[in-house]
Amino acid sequence: MSTRTSIDDVTPATVAALQKTLDGRWHTLRDEIRGREDFAELRVDPGTDVESYRAAIWDMLRRLADDGHAVHGFPAAVGGRGDIGGSVVSFEMLAFADLSLQVKSGVQWGLFGGAIQALGNAEQQARYLPGVMDLSLPGCFAMTETGHGSDVQSVHTTATYDASTGELVVNTPTESAKKDYIGNAARDGRMAAVFVQLYSRDAKRSGAGPSEQLERHGVHAVLVPLRGDDGAVLPGVEITDDGHKEGLNGVDNGRLAFHGVRVPRENLLDRYGTVAEDGTYSSSIESENRRFFTMLGALVRGRVSVSGSAVGAASLAQTIAVRYGEARRQFAAPGSDEEITVLDYLAHQRKLLPGLARTYALRFAQNELVEMLHDIQTTREAGGDVDEKRQRELESRAAGTKALTTWHATATIQACREACGGQGYLSENRLGQLRADTDVFTTFEGDNTVLLQLVAKGLISGYADDFGNLDTLGTVRFVADQVLDTVAERTSLRQLTERLRAVGPGRDEDDVLERSWQVKLLDDREEHTLDGLVRRLRPARDKSLSAERQFAIFNNAQDHLLRAARAHLDGLVLDAFVRGIDTCVDPSARALMERVCDLYALSLIEQDKGWFLEHGRISAARAKAVTAEVNRLCQELRPHARALVDAFGIPEAWIGAPIATGAETRRQDEARAHAAALH
Amino acid sequence: MSTRTSIDDVTPATVAALQKTLDGRWHTLRDEIRGREDFAELRVDPGTDVESYRAAIWDMLRRLADDGHAVHGFPAAVGGRGDIGGSVVSFEMLAFADLSLQVKSGVQWGLFGGAIQALGNAEQQARYLPGVMDLSLPGCFAMTETGHGSDVQSVHTTATYDASTGELVVNTPTESAKKDYIGNAARDGRMAAVFVQLYSRDAKRSGAGPSEQLERHGVHAVLVPLRGDDGAVLPGVEITDDGHKEGLNGVDNGRLAFHGVRVPRENLLDRYGTVAEDGTYSSSIESENRRFFTMLGALVRGRVSVSGSAVGAASLAQTIAVRYGEARRQFAAPGSDEEITVLDYLAHQRKLLPGLARTYALRFAQNELVEMLHDIQTTREAGGDVDEKRQRELESRAAGTKALTTWHATATIQACREACGGQGYLSENRLGQLRADTDVFTTFEGDNTVLLQLVAKGLISGYADDFGNLDTLGTVRFVADQVLDTVAERTSLRQLTERLRAVGPGRDEDDVLERSWQVKLLDDREEHTLDGLVRRLRPARDKSLSAERQFAIFNNAQDHLLRAARAHLDGLVLDAFVRGIDTCVDPSARALMERVCDLYALSLIEQDKGWFLEHGRISAARAKAVTAEVNRLCQELRPHARALVDAFGIPEAWIGAPIATGAETRRQDEARAHAAALH
Repeated sequence: MSTRTSIDDVTPATVAALQKTLDGRWHTLRDEIRGREDFAELRVDPGTDVESYRAAIWDMLRRLADDGHAVHGFPAAVGGRGDIGGSVVSFEMLAFADLSLQVKSGVQWGLFGGAIQALGNAEQQARYLPGVMDLSLPGCFAMTETGHGSDVQSVHTTATYDASTGELVVNTPTESAKKDYIGNAARDGRMAAVFVQLYSRDAKRSGAGPSEQLERHGVHAVLVPLRGDDGAVLPGVEITDDGHKEGLNGVDNGRLAFHGVRVPRENLLDRYGTVAEDGTYSSSIESENRRFFTMLGALVRGRVSVSGSAVGAASLAQTIAVRYGEARRQFAAPGSDEEITVLDYLAHQRKLLPGLARTYALRFAQNELVEMLHDIQTTREAGGDVDEKRQRELESRAAGTKALTTWHATATIQACREACGGQGYLSENRLGQLRADTDVFTTFEGDNTVLLQLVAKGLISGYADDFGNLDTLGTVRFVADQVLDTVAERTSLRQLTERLRAVGPGRDEDDVLERSWQVKLLDDREEHTLDGLVRRLRPARDKSLSAERQFAIFNNAQDHLLRAARAHLDGLVLDAFVRGIDTCVDPSARALMERVCDLYALSLIEQDKGWFLEHGRISAARAKAVTAEVNRLCQELRPHARALVDAFGIPEAWIGAPIATGAETRRQDEARAHAAALH
Repeated sequence: MSTRTSIDDVTPATVAALQKTLDGRWHTLRDEIRGREDFAELRVDPGTDVESYRAAIWDMLRRLADDGHAVHGFPAAVGGRGDIGGSVVSFEMLAFADLSLQVKSGVQWGLFGGAIQALGNAEQQARYLPGVMDLSLPGCFAMTETGHGSDVQSVHTTATYDASTGELVVNTPTESAKKDYIGNAARDGRMAAVFVQLYSRDAKRSGAGPSEQLERHGVHAVLVPLRGDDGAVLPGVEITDDGHKEGLNGVDNGRLAFHGVRVPRENLLDRYGTVAEDGTYSSSIESENRRFFTMLGALVRGRVSVSGSAVGAASLAQTIAVRYGEARRQFAAPGSDEEITVLDYLAHQRKLLPGLARTYALRFAQNELVEMLHDIQTTREAGGDVDEKRQRELESRAAGTKALTTWHATATIQACREACGGQGYLSENRLGQLRADTDVFTTFEGDNTVLLQLVAKGLISGYADDFGNLDTLGTVRFVADQVLDTVAERTSLRQLTERLRAVGPGRDEDDVLERSWQVKLLDDREEHTLDGLVRRLRPARDKSLSAERQFAIFNNAQDHLLRAARAHLDGLVLDAFVRGIDTCVDPSARALMERVCDLYALSLIEQDKGWFLEHGRISAARAKAVTAEVNRLCQELRPHARALVDAFGIPEAWIGAPIATGAETRRQDEARAHAAALH
């Protein structure tokens, strides 16, 4: 198949070049953190009981705070480094330590601190952020409710302004309105940023009965103290423990309920909407819907961070599984006592290498996402203007990338566990806990299925300004009302150099290793899927349809909607991979990455070959050629598997798993020596 | 698309009929066990530390022993019930209690007791089995070594007969020869059935030096005491703890090493090979290879039991996820305050219902496997003759079914966890622990990938008598030497009524709901894949090829080999489903199962539509029709999802998970009442 020359000799210099390329813009910070040998100590034995686990993680978090690990993302004005991308990267690196520690730090600095930073005014930032950073003010991000996870706009917790005292009264009306799965709640939190439906009495109105006078202003965040300095829970606050979880047991998740808790008006995080002393509400954003999504958009960093963590966890699991696969031997070769290294079996390569290629691809997509986040939020914090559409693209990429990376982490860690057999099941080898700790990533910070719908809507609407809310049904109305005639500038999301984009789909006579053929094939699938989706939704525009019928139209197309989102994201990720390779100058590293990129693209095409065949995009012969080439690439890359995982740059001391750090090699050497002695 | 009438009203009688059909031949025993309310207490809080967990499980195991839960599978002669199928079923039911308890019981009664029953002589059975059953003799099944899991035939542990004392001397030569992951080893085991390479001095030979005189007789099992009555580890025995694991932490897995441990000759389990006092070895089976696989074949019950456990765990997870999906609501319908039940979304149905259909299919395949095991082993225990080929078919079906059921459990429990969002991550709702506990099933009792290779070899060899060992490379030599001209009686494995088997592949004009079309499509794929595999392996017959070249031929075809095995198994499972439906007389239950069977078959075809299109077996239009029909079936079956999981017959008290037993419903009712009060 391949007409290319074979891969050049891979040297330590190649690995160094690979690593620098994967590290991306924040490679210096990554190296700085890699220097911290003591990170290896930041891990808790999985057997530890919940209370001791939580206590140990709390102590480690304090160590991080003392080391200034928290400062990266916060404004210089309050003692931070003002390096937003750096905060995401430093968070990601914690995936190599303990994921409970990572998530705990994310709750404190990313979510609680991030809410104050994104939604609070300057005075509030100056007052609270120093304590957030140095951990003197441990806090919670209280958004999700037992009854409303994905549909945040419908939270039932209320905050009602009482002009007579100048206070906001926070209430939890029902059990399903309790704030749930809240990190820092069960043990350590002293304050929470609580997302509520804000009500105030409109001073301008007159006469009518009290209930008429109450006006709802939509979702806002209010700072509510939870515990006193002595750690005792404050009056009116009710905290219950979520107890033991599948993973992340070092994080003290709990439920929060509020019974008439009064806080001063000044506790409203009011950057996007405020209540005057007399109860008058004012906001720079007229539409409640847009106000809500502007606030949510300002919190996008959390999603980007989870995505980075998933990529980090996947790369750690693959480092362990590849190293073991190179040491482990099973079954003797014919006419020989020498047993075969398991990674030499095609089936084992198939288990690990396409997943490894995908981690490379997602790493580059993640790097671009972090840069986009950094540039946009840095501009905004500097008071600069950010184009609305660019902000929406950021939100869409964050949603889509997070869905891909977290599902990939779940699948690939599982494959790594199985590839390590019984050893993979022992906690000392980390894979089981990595799986359990990261499992929740697919459903927190936005359920992946809901996030893909968000991506699809962006494609349909072309990020129109009044781009709708997360309500999946809203899609139908929105689409029907406004955008069905044109599918707006998809291409604005795809900036790959034109050399790879001749018109039309990939031609069947191209070499399957032609990057342009791969790219065009994915582009073509994206365009076709999206156009089909629009056709299927168009009937919903008929205003005479019942709500049930409208729902049916949306619901019958839901799998198509999800496919359109995936098709778009696959293309986006391939573009990122290609651009990533272009940032590397080392020829042998480039050559190696080109092959890895082939393996990524072709295994993706192989996975969905049913679609490509069904839609006449590839011939049967071509489909078979793709499979043959995936096998060939697995065997071509196998000798370089170790180099590819070494390039993740996980310090030896951090890896931990005995099977990845010599134990199996020593056993094999001893066994072979013993066998030799017998003959 | 469907020309059939819609499903009849589903009543409690329908559910009862479904349950009886799913229960199969042992339905009375299943009902007997369901009557045990106290099973709900047989569960340990996942947060429990390892030592307390192990202690609790030990106490529960004793309760089971006292209740006579152990007796089912053992011979009446020693106080058992002689009900082999019943032992597998009673083991499976424990999946609804605690999986650590289940696996612990499997180690004691299935593996340790099973080894004595299958490999020991009558005297040994009479001597040891009563203590095995009443738990006065807790034991281990010490087969796997750190260095040899799948390749059991190459274990390095040795037992050398010393005629001067009439003892066997057991040794662990290297670290990788340690018996590893051995249940009951770290805490409770008093004795182990240790699998060793047996050596004895051949009395018939003369003169030569000592080493020449030592003759190896291949793998045998020896009973070795581990601890004294006081629980202290005996001299020469070394036991280390495998420590905390991803799951199953109530089972005390450990490593065993033996340093010159001497046991009387009578401790050799010698049904298939024995050593006389003078050291002469004799066996009823000449070929060492056949002897090994005969012994292994006698132990097949363990694999069948794990397979049943996987089906049980999957059905419990689906019961929880479907119940929650029917209570949980998210996002309001257009123009309404009423939120949509999540199971009404097509994407949610797609997440759960094809997997549910697959659990039905695998349940029927498992039932047939248990019947086959029961009939064969019952015949043999009664001294009857069992046809060699039937035994091989049993081993192949056990291997293949176990691979499918355990991979299915891993995938579907994961899907159920995600479908339950944050609630699914809380241990109280069981899904996380179900995932962690069952994860190891895919690699223990035979690594699934290796098991599929075993199935493929059976297909190629047509179960020729000298059907080779697990050595994957052996395949090539074996195939090359003997069977490449004919692919022997595949059909002997497929006994579906001929009405479904007209000649040739499914015709494109058939309705996709035509069962005969579905069956023929799968048959055709099986035949084509297998023929292609044989063609690819044929070159290996050239004797002049180097070992490397032979390996390359095998290795390049390994993915094809695995595909052939899956294709065969898919057909086998569909046949079992069809036969299962035929055992049901209730018309509404039959109608419902026919739809479930359609969903199983069509989602299977959809998954692999790439292959069917690539090989011209279906047209593009037909492929799209299949996808449309899968969506339609999801929506048609959705109203009956609850009935379908209720038919698994898991007693309410055993389900445990709050989200599956009313908690969410209560929350939703309260929230809706509150909302109503506001208007």
